[in-house]
Amino acid sequence: MQNFEFYNPTKIIFGKDSISKLSTEIPDNAKVLLLYGGGSIKNNGIYEQVKTALSNFEVVEFGGIPANPEYEVLLKALEIIKTENITYLLAVGGGSVIDGTKFLSSAALYEGVSPWDIISKFIRTEKGMPFGTVLTLPATGSEMNSGAVITRKETQEKFGMGGPGLFPQFSILDPQAIHSIPKHQIANGITDAFTHVLEQYMTYPTQAFLQDRFCESILQTLIEVAPLVLENPYNHEAASNYMWCCTMALNGLIQKGVPTDWAVHAIGHELTAQFGIDHARTLAIIAPSHYRYSIESKKIKLAQFAERVFGVQTGTIEEKATAGIEKMEAFFHSLNIKTKLSEYTSEYQGVAERIESRFIARNWMGLGEHKSLTPADVKKIVEMSY
Amino acid sequence: MQNFEFYNPTKIIFGKDSISKLSTEIPDNAKVLLLYGGGSIKNNGIYEQVKTALSNFEVVEFGGIPANPEYEVLLKALEIIKTENITYLLAVGGGSVIDGTKFLSSAALYEGVSPWDIISKFIRTEKGMPFGTVLTLPATGSEMNSGAVITRKETQEKFGMGGPGLFPQFSILDPQAIHSIPKHQIANGITDAFTHVLEQYMTYPTQAFLQDRFCESILQTLIEVAPLVLENPYNHEAASNYMWCCTMALNGLIQKGVPTDWAVHAIGHELTAQFGIDHARTLAIIAPSHYRYSIESKKIKLAQFAERVFGVQTGTIEEKATAGIEKMEAFFHSLNIKTKLSEYTSEYQGVAERIESRFIARNWMGLGEHKSLTPADVKKIVEMSY
Repeated sequence: MQNFEFYNPTKIIFGKDSISKLSTEIPDNAKVLLLYGGGSIKNNGIYEQVKTALSNFEVVEFGGIPANPEYEVLLKALEIIKTENITYLLAVGGGSVIDGTKFLSSAALYEGVSPWDIISKFIRTEKGMPFGTVLTLPATGSEMNSGAVITRKETQEKFGMGGPGLFPQFSILDPQAIHSIPKHQIANGITDAFTHVLEQYMTYPTQAFLQDRFCESILQTLIEVAPLVLENPYNHEAASNYMWCCTMALNGLIQKGVPTDWAVHAIGHELTAQFGIDHARTLAIIAPSHYRYSIESKKIKLAQFAERVFGVQTGTIEEKATAGIEKMEAFFHSLNIKTKLSEYTSEYQGVAERIESRFIARNWMGLGEHKSLTPADVKKIVEMSY
Repeated sequence: MQNFEFYNPTKIIFGKDSISKLSTEIPDNAKVLLLYGGGSIKNNGIYEQVKTALSNFEVVEFGGIPANPEYEVLLKALEIIKTENITYLLAVGGGSVIDGTKFLSSAALYEGVSPWDIISKFIRTEKGMPFGTVLTLPATGSEMNSGAVITRKETQEKFGMGGPGLFPQFSILDPQAIHSIPKHQIANGITDAFTHVLEQYMTYPTQAFLQDRFCESILQTLIEVAPLVLENPYNHEAASNYMWCCTMALNGLIQKGVPTDWAVHAIGHELTAQFGIDHARTLAIIAPSHYRYSIESKKIKLAQFAERVFGVQTGTIEEKATAGIEKMEAFFHSLNIKTKLSEYTSEYQGVAERIESRFIARNWMGLGEHKSLTPADVKKIVEMSY
């Protein structure tokens, strides 16, 4: 186990009908900017619940934050924060709205020339404008961590940002939120959370026995509840487990003391940028190829995954490792998530080379838990995913 | 899964040689009261490491906090806090020193007549004097929660206290601390953490699949590393897992969304009060009897425990449940922890009646996850443990 630091001050308010608790979490005299996405919250009752809970506050609204929150859109919200003297932000949405809100939390208190500095100069946010969240789409874990991914449309790039000042003060998780989520988005959420765990688990053994088992616990639970929530999102127990798994998959806990990979995300982001494929689906495309390509360095954990998560008891380490990848693919397929790029687009030829070039053009740091994957390796992994 | 709230802002600094990070966690101008126990930290090098890390601070010391921290002793430390204008507390020790420090954190800012009010009137501490901890004995989890147990000697009673103001600001967990811990204390720590998990797990099923698996993860890991740390406390990987398991067993996470029991602790405290038996050993005495007595209501979880933690695959629910209790006893015995009261004292006759009387004399709320155990039930459980 490696040395680590763990800190996560976000208060989680979890359960049925918990949105009404909003009012006691926001300071009495706050002027609130309510941030949301495409407006689905106006159709599923969540908007009404939030407005009722905020009835004693002065509230300004900003809707329309898109999936993959765009810097240009967020600048308009930043303008409102300044002109309206907003003191508190409330994100009502999924990972995109919450990530966008984190950027705004940082930018609202940033004293430099341009808020783009926060991203381009990798400025770690020590203190942001306080904010809370009401989670409407379990997937990214952003409701209980201090990181965000912001998109700049003109360059087709996604940029990470974060810092200890960007934890939500509170996050409200009502599993009833999933009642109205389209099935393909629930499948995306499960795939996203599942892959978040894999990025922190599928590396090499470090005798972090507890962390390994926590990872396997989340994976097993997602596998157990996935068919239940997809069949019936009103299954409250299944929905609750799905929602809590997504949060625990990326709130920092399971990554402590262990190496992490994140190559699947780095490569997957490129497929979203080039083809507009849903984030989660790009992960399901890349993960199997990455694990096959890197099987020599990952085979012990892949075999452990096959044994403990899927009950594969026979075979050599190599056979179990291969079985683990196949079981993972079969799980994605069971969610109706396709795992080959050619199943999403017919224009995939040449993309491996284009991604290789884009990676070469950056200040390349290496990918994977050993930082050993080169742009040429990435090219091969993408080709394997065709 | 039940509705829940989770909040835990303690920063964990975990790993080899982490005590030196103390200085950056305490505010620059703090006047620190360094609190410790019987003085073992002066023999194992930890005192020196702490003093070195604190070299730029004004530090006053208070040693001698006993196991089961006593109110009367703590009042002397409180006097020092006031006369010396202390602004920050640093607990260096195990659960007793940390619990005592939590009482002092609360009492230092208490504005009422007597600090005893905090305990006798169940006053929840919303704000305490800030404090950090350096953990020297993994067991109680107090380093990452907001609760404490304080003993009043004259009445042979233990009282719980707590509140959101009593989380340590930081806790430093260096697994090297266990190098010098006597074996029987390591065995106690493992037993304490193991039973903490059981109190939050061994109830009835609530479809909290993730919480169940997290509990089983901690139990399995403790079982895996127990023989390793007992054989060689210098086994850093085993020590790290042991230490992290103890913290995760009682930092609030695994109890969220599920019923909890805590009858084993309530009854065990009485055995410590009457016979001075180590806290952890009283848990190993009571747990098997409690689970046998309550097998009808706990058998589903007992069987799940037998299956998932100990690999018991055959038998009826009842047979698996019984096997689970036997495997648990065998685990305690493997730590050289005896599980019968008569193995600790020859003067056990009549204690069941005495405990029954003491429980009757209190404002009885019922014990167990259903609050259904009466003093008469407790009497029978204690008799079964003879």
